[in-house]
Formats: sequence, C-alpha cells, structure tokens
Amino acid sequence: MRITDLIVVPLAFRDPPLLNSWGVHEPLALRTIVKLVVDDSVVAWGEGSGEASVIANLARVREAVLGLNPFDLNGIERAIDAALAPCGASARDRLSTFAILEVACHDAQGKIAGVSVAELLGGRVRDSVPYSAYLFYKWAAHKDGEPDEWGAALDPDGIVAQARTMIDRYGFGSVKLKAGVFPPDVEIATMRALASAFPGLPLRIDPNGAWSVETSLRGAGELTDVLEYLEDPTLDLDDMATVAREGGLPLATNMCVTSFETVPPALQRDAVQIVLSDHHYWGGLRRSHELGRMCATFGLGLSMHSNSHLGVSLAAMTHLAAATPRLSYACDTHYPWNSADDVVVPGVLEFREGSLAVPTGPGLGVEVDEDKLEALHQVYLDSGRTVRDDTAYMRRVDPDYDPTLPRF
Amino acid sequence: MRITDLIVVPLAFRDPPLLNSWGVHEPLALRTIVKLVVDDSVVAWGEGSGEASVIANLARVREAVLGLNPFDLNGIERAIDAALAPCGASARDRLSTFAILEVACHDAQGKIAGVSVAELLGGRVRDSVPYSAYLFYKWAAHKDGEPDEWGAALDPDGIVAQARTMIDRYGFGSVKLKAGVFPPDVEIATMRALASAFPGLPLRIDPNGAWSVETSLRGAGELTDVLEYLEDPTLDLDDMATVAREGGLPLATNMCVTSFETVPPALQRDAVQIVLSDHHYWGGLRRSHELGRMCATFGLGLSMHSNSHLGVSLAAMTHLAAATPRLSYACDTHYPWNSADDVVVPGVLEFREGSLAVPTGPGLGVEVDEDKLEALHQVYLDSGRTVRDDTAYMRRVDPDYDPTLPRF
Repeated sequence: MRITDLIVVPLAFRDPPLLNSWGVHEPLALRTIVKLVVDDSVVAWGEGSGEASVIANLARVREAVLGLNPFDLNGIERAIDAALAPCGASARDRLSTFAILEVACHDAQGKIAGVSVAELLGGRVRDSVPYSAYLFYKWAAHKDGEPDEWGAALDPDGIVAQARTMIDRYGFGSVKLKAGVFPPDVEIATMRALASAFPGLPLRIDPNGAWSVETSLRGAGELTDVLEYLEDPTLDLDDMATVAREGGLPLATNMCVTSFETVPPALQRDAVQIVLSDHHYWGGLRRSHELGRMCATFGLGLSMHSNSHLGVSLAAMTHLAAATPRLSYACDTHYPWNSADDVVVPGVLEFREGSLAVPTGPGLGVEVDEDKLEALHQVYLDSGRTVRDDTAYMRRVDPDYDPTLPRF
Repeated sequence: MRITDLIVVPLAFRDPPLLNSWGVHEPLALRTIVKLVVDDSVVAWGEGSGEASVIANLARVREAVLGLNPFDLNGIERAIDAALAPCGASARDRLSTFAILEVACHDAQGKIAGVSVAELLGGRVRDSVPYSAYLFYKWAAHKDGEPDEWGAALDPDGIVAQARTMIDRYGFGSVKLKAGVFPPDVEIATMRALASAFPGLPLRIDPNGAWSVETSLRGAGELTDVLEYLEDPTLDLDDMATVAREGGLPLATNMCVTSFETVPPALQRDAVQIVLSDHHYWGGLRRSHELGRMCATFGLGLSMHSNSHLGVSLAAMTHLAAATPRLSYACDTHYPWNSADDVVVPGVLEFREGSLAVPTGPGLGVEVDEDKLEALHQVYLDSGRTVRDDTAYMRRVDPDYDPTLPRF
C-alpha cells in the first residue's frame, strides 16, 4: 500500500474582523487542504496553515512521500525531515508539515482498515466532544466592508450579546474570550458582565501574553470567582510561574508549552496547570495523544487550542479529543466564525448542546466537496495573499498600532 | 468488525534452574497464550503470565470483550475494568489482563489492515532490534533431574563460559547478569571476569534489589569502568536516588518505575536514568510506546525488561522496540532459555548478530503451531502447577533459604 499522489490546495475563506493582541483578522483567512491518494484509489484529507512557508514545505516534501506506506508515519516523518533539512526548516516547521500529512494518513488508514480515526487512536472514550464558545472583540465590519451578521463587540455589552448568539445557536456550555485587546479594566468588566449574564457558566479569558505580571495578578484577583482558568496572561515562563503561584487561578497555555521539550521546564516551575494542545504544531494526532498521557501522568489538565480552521481540522480535533481519556475542559474552536465557507459537506459537523458528535464513518468520517475546494482555491489565487499579518491590517486603520507585548 | 471468540490456553514449558534473588526457576515455566478470533475468521494471538490469577482474570473478562471491536482498545479496557471490579483486582492486575488482549488486538488489527504491528505503532525506526545476552547463575540440573545442555554456572568461570555460548550462538553484542544470588564479591568478580574475557563488550548487572545502599555503592565503585548501567541494585526509591547520586553509574529499573504513576517520583529524585519497560505490565504496546515518548522528553534512557516468555511475546516486544524512536540499549530477553519449546513456528524469530529482524508479515508476523500449543497445554494440566514460586522450589534444596531483601 503506497501513497500515489499528494495534492496541496491553498484556500482563502471569509473571516470576520476579530481582534487579538497582535491586531485584527484579515477579511480572508488562509488555510491548506491536502488530498492524499493511496494506491490510486483511497482519497484522504489533511488540513493545516495556509502560510506560504507551509505550502512551500509541502511542495518540497511531495516527491519524498510518494511511494511510502500511509501507516509508516515514522518513515514519512524521516522523509519530510530529510527533504526539509537542506532549506534549514525549523523543528516546528518540520512538525507542522508532518502534522498535515499525519492527519491525512490517519484518514487513509481508517478508510483502508474500515475504522474511524478515533479507533486508530485507541477508541472513543466519549461519543461527543464538548467545545467552548470562542468570543472575540470585533468590529462591525472589515475596513471598507459591509457589516457582518455578528455585529460589533467592542465592550462588555457587545461581548455578552455575542455570547448569547453563540450559545443560542450552538448550545456551548463554556465561554472563552480572546483578550489582550483593550485595557484590562474593560476586559475584566467584560468577564464580570458575562458572569452576570450567564451565572455559573464556566468562563476563561486569554490575554494572549499582553499582560504584565502585575496586570495578570490583578486580573486573576478580580476574576478568581468567575474563571475556570486564566490562559496565557503573560509570555515568559518564569512570569507565568509567578502568576500561577500568586494569582490563585490555574493557568492554561498554548504559548509557553508548545512541544515536548517545553514540558519539563514548565513542570519544574509549576508554571502552567493546563496544556492546550494543538495537533497542528505538536506534530499530529499520535503525538497529541501521547501528550494526553503525559499530562495525566504529571497532573496537568488538558484541553485544545484552535486557530482559524475548516472542517477537516475540526474532524481531526474531534477524533483526537474523543480518544483522549483525560480531557479536562471543553475544547476551543474558531469553527463558528468560518463554518459558512467550509469545504466539508454539511451534515456531520453540527454542534448540538455545545458538543460535536464524533464522526462514525471510516477515517475522519467527513466528505470534502471538491467543487467548493476549487472555488476557495480560486479565492486564494485571486486574493494575492500568501501570509497572515494581523498587525499590518490593523495598521491600515490605526497607523500607530504597536503590537509589542506585554501591552498592559 | 467484532471479537467473536477468545480462547485462553495456559501452557507449561521447560525452564532451566536459573538462580535469582528470590530462589530458582522451577522445571516448568508457566505462560498463557490467548487466541482471539475476529468476525469468525481472523485469528490473532497474545501472550502473558501463566499465573492462576491471570488465567482467572482472563476467564472473568471473556464474555465482556466478545462483540467488541478489536480497534476499540479503550472500550476493551473499560469492559475489562468493569468485569474485574467486583473481584477487587488491582490496577496492575487489570492492566496485565488488558495487555495480553491488547497485543492480540494489535495482531488482529494488523491482519485486518494488512500491516505489521510496528506499522500500527507508527512504523519502524529500525529493521532489527538488538537484544542482550541474559546470563544467569544456574545449577547444572534441576533437583533430581538430568544436567541440561547449558551446564552449571556458579562462579565467574561458569558465567564466562555461558556468555561465550550465548554469544557464539546468537551474536549478542551486550551482556546482562542476573545477580543478587551470591555474595557481592563473587558477583563483582564475575563482572570483572566478563570484562576481561570480552573486552569492550557492554555489561550490565542486575542485583534485583538484593543489595543494601552500602553494597550498591561499593559495587558501583568497583565496576564503574566496565558497566553501561547498574540495574535495580536496591529496592527503595530513595535508596536508588542515593546510589544514583553517589555511585557514579546510571541506574536502570524495572522494579521502582513500573507504571506511569511511578515516573514523577523517580524523576523528582533523579533516582533512575534508564527505564526498562515491559508491555506486559505497562498495559500493552500503546502505553509502552507512550512511555518511550515520556522517557525521551524527560531525558530518561529506555530499554526493555523480560520475564520467561515464548515467541508471541518476543514478536510483540520486537515490533514495539522497532517503532520506538529512542531505544537506548539492547533489550533483555529470556528467549534463548526457552525457545526450544516455543509455540511459534520456527523461521521468523532467529537472532542474527544479536538482533532480531522485525517480522514483516501482517500483525505480529508470526504463526502459532496449534498442535504444539495443545501439547504444552497438556504439560500444564499434567504438572498440576498454577503459580510460580521460585522460593519454595529453592527451599526444597535449601530449607533455610531466606528471600528477604536486601540480602547483602
């Protein structure tokens, strides 16, 4: 059984003007879908970042993986490392390239063996995976654009309204706010407004490294009674340790624990209590599953980080979460912001009561609409875009915007 | 796809009078082979301990696993835990029961998907797995029995001769001595004799917890220049930490790190530097593979422990080792002591230059001779034996034998 084709399809799809600590999401988000063909007959899918570097790396490794067995993930990783070594790709770049193909290989493996990806990862420990409502401060419209259906959310009331829409539509049972955008008093007030509007609902705030230690401690102190955790308030590991020790709240991270190498120093400092894994940069589903075992062993909580993504990634995340015994918190997902442009045929990836039923078909259990894929590829080509730059886009509106962190 | 039958076959096979810190191996070693049938057509194999408690547990879980999908390892583990909960089985007993079926499920999965177990574990990182020569002090014959082909090994010369036979036959490139049997001066002299007879050959000694801290430090000091590691000189974790800190040699263990729960305390104390994994009690191949990631992450070396076993276990160990990226040392195996009675059809499991080529057929890649299986089951029934008791057997020769550790 051999990989006989690998087709790399960069896409662009609509994204609302979501604010974060580096700027604001551009009108189009970029993403890559790979189509992996095995024995000229089994078609499988992977998804990852749409950055030019990723697409270039996928092109560089294509020849090296043709002819390999889709079950031989270690061999595929070796081939990728060898192909990318001459261009000096970082370990993270190599892992991100591998992760896209690793997901596609799991899709292929499942289709070949007649089992789901969750079963390839050891079997489901839950039949549906809880996700959280991922709230963003946002503009009503993109620069020079028409208002989107979500409207503006630039203050506590706006975020409460957004949360209500999210919860009404999808039934999410927990809420995360991407923060680090406005002065801490506004963001703290936003969380208190959410707590008042949705009593008892688990809340999280993610300042994305924008807070100093002092601000982090103040934020933790003022939100102790309403947060289930505080995510990446500050960037430095020792600073995180200080906030963890003095702040009175568990800290979650997808910024200072991002690879196996970063786990021991975090444990030594007791700097984080919850790891937000992401198979896209941890090197795929197997490694992420291994991370789950590591977290359980060392008493770390585990949940899942998300970036803007489409349904192939959502399916992969859901299978992984379904097969991960100790998943401590509902996973993050940007999907509600982008699902209208998804390339996955509708019907499988539908949130019910805040959770996604684990697809039961072979492999990832989702079907890709190749016409939609081609259409979004054309949008990508027409856009002329090849990288994401939230800061540059923000500066078109606010020329003095300074993304240096910590900001507050 | 469903498990449609599970047949548990206890076996007994010839074992030489090998000495250890608890006594001496009895004339028959006990083992269990399980035959797992999927969809009434796929036949798969597992192997584990032959102790009565294991056989009883396998009988208790049989009904619970029938009908389950052999890819749903988590579901099978839940079923086993539920079936064994009423009889108060320990976590280790539950894991040992699960591990036997987990290997059989991997054999079935591989046969269904048309790939080897190594590929199910992520693919081979090596095409053959190095094993070490596992030396034992031994009597020439069992009590009231005829001398075996290996002869006596009760002093340094006997062990050197045994090592020469092992190396001549199998080409092993490293040597381990099971110690804790004779006074430390004899055992230290034995290691020095090995070092003289085989200059440069990596050597290990395993006192099996029989040494005090003082003896361990003396042994380490006198053998620093010839050992690659010192295995389980003493039982207590804090004592191991002392020996690790002051002894000047890396310590290996299969006695104080035996489950994920025992990893953090060992790391906190820097008590061990090499973990000798064993899929039979770590809960199967997946967990053992995860242990490999954990060891690589925390800078621990990794190799493999063995107990008396047959070819199904050897094949499983070999696939696991083949798919484990950072395997620091040649694996242990008792196989040369028992291979004459193996139930695996000869031809696949042959040591060449001390290594075993990874079987390439689907699943475990070995075939079981069912006539041989039946014959060894009859030996088991005829023996009347149901447990292993090295101490009781030793006391038939030396009524005053005291197995209390540390002995020296």
